Amino acid sequence: MNTPLFLNNIRIVLSHTSHPGNIGSAARAMKTMGLADLRLINPQRFPDPQAHAMAAGASDILEAAQVSDTLEAALAGTVLAVGCTARRRDLSHRMLSAREAAPILMEQATQTPVALVFGTEMSGLTNAELDRCQMLVHIPADPEFSSLNLGAAVQVLAYELRCALPEQTMPVEAQTTLARHEDLELFYTELERTLLLTGYLNPAAPRRLMPRLRRLFARTMLEKEELNILMGMLKVMRQGYTKG
Amino acid sequence: MNTPLFLNNIRIVLSHTSHPGNIGSAARAMKTMGLADLRLINPQRFPDPQAHAMAAGASDILEAAQVSDTLEAALAGTVLAVGCTARRRDLSHRMLSAREAAPILMEQATQTPVALVFGTEMSGLTNAELDRCQMLVHIPADPEFSSLNLGAAVQVLAYELRCALPEQTMPVEAQTTLARHEDLELFYTELERTLLLTGYLNPAAPRRLMPRLRRLFARTMLEKEELNILMGMLKVMRQGYTKG
Repeated sequence: MNTPLFLNNIRIVLSHTSHPGNIGSAARAMKTMGLADLRLINPQRFPDPQAHAMAAGASDILEAAQVSDTLEAALAGTVLAVGCTARRRDLSHRMLSAREAAPILMEQATQTPVALVFGTEMSGLTNAELDRCQMLVHIPADPEFSSLNLGAAVQVLAYELRCALPEQTMPVEAQTTLARHEDLELFYTELERTLLLTGYLNPAAPRRLMPRLRRLFARTMLEKEELNILMGMLKVMRQGYTKG
Repeated sequence: MNTPLFLNNIRIVLSHTSHPGNIGSAARAMKTMGLADLRLINPQRFPDPQAHAMAAGASDILEAAQVSDTLEAALAGTVLAVGCTARRRDLSHRMLSAREAAPILMEQATQTPVALVFGTEMSGLTNAELDRCQMLVHIPADPEFSSLNLGAAVQVLAYELRCALPEQTMPVEAQTTLARHEDLELFYTELERTLLLTGYLNPAAPRRLMPRLRRLFARTMLEKEELNILMGMLKVMRQGYTKG
């Protein structure tokens, strides 16, 4: 249940963000995925009530955010900085998709701090900032409209990082008791008997009706209680044809 | 370069959204991933300048959005509706992660319309809405803070859909034709009518029988021909009670 400790080794660095609402959205996006370390480089307005409004329940991340003047400071102590970019850059950086980059970041983060760096809303990362990143990451998008909102970009990357967790804990499906094989077979027998009795199934021309119904119910993986309901329905169906 | 046409077969349905800004964020999120068909069920405020502000360059999607009063209307013509939920539901719906659900939606979308349904910001989908979905999808998140912003949730799912785009955008061969939403609803109506007639369903004590049956058949993703078989069975079931 607990957030793996090494998620704390992943820093989200936002450089020169214009809109405080986006800082709040980013904080919320981080928290949903178990990230906590937010670094801000010269935000235009921060702290700001709009940031808190958009953070919803993630104000703790805003309050713990470290603000600095330079990317240098925000990256201190990290072993890997990955810059997020929408545009193709005329650079010799290794360029990965979000899905490719996440396990690389995660693997490093099990040992030492790493950073994901986001530029401004309008123009992204500067060349000087890119020079401080070892890799670039992009989010696959429609080439005709590839500009994700900053908070949305943080959300997608944080989500990919979470999916890259060694043992991603999925909510377990509600425990249900599936019907046993023997009970299912009894159901199919009763079903056939009922369809014969009512005349819906013509033994001279069965039209693969029973195999089709078997397939239909096999796909649904009947639960024990559901099977009881269906057996009850078959019973009333027969009663209409026997009591008259 | 062009957006595959079948992305137009994927509807994003937002039910009873409280904040117009979230509708705008959702529109932008959709557009970045090449989705265009937005359906709104009784939005609290729409159209609204806040929606357009958050949509940024995606106002065209807001302007084309169809607004309706019911989920029924929003789902008309679809063969598959997948409900997005953060909480674990005490139901027998098939529950998939975003990554698992995306290729399933995409495969259907190569042929016919499908829908991703999002509930309100505060409480998600109602049980009545869930009853109209064949599957549930969740976004893996920190169990201690799993509440993604609505726009962010749309972004993650739209992103997963884009990642699920087939390399070669060739519609797969139609193996089976799934039953349409309207025909399924007609089946449920006939089923209820039949169970009332036979006395199996007691209107004074319905015991959630119909919702249970809905879920059972939702899981199986009924094909058109299978639905015809079931409709035929209901008919003979009623005949036993009317001709006598």
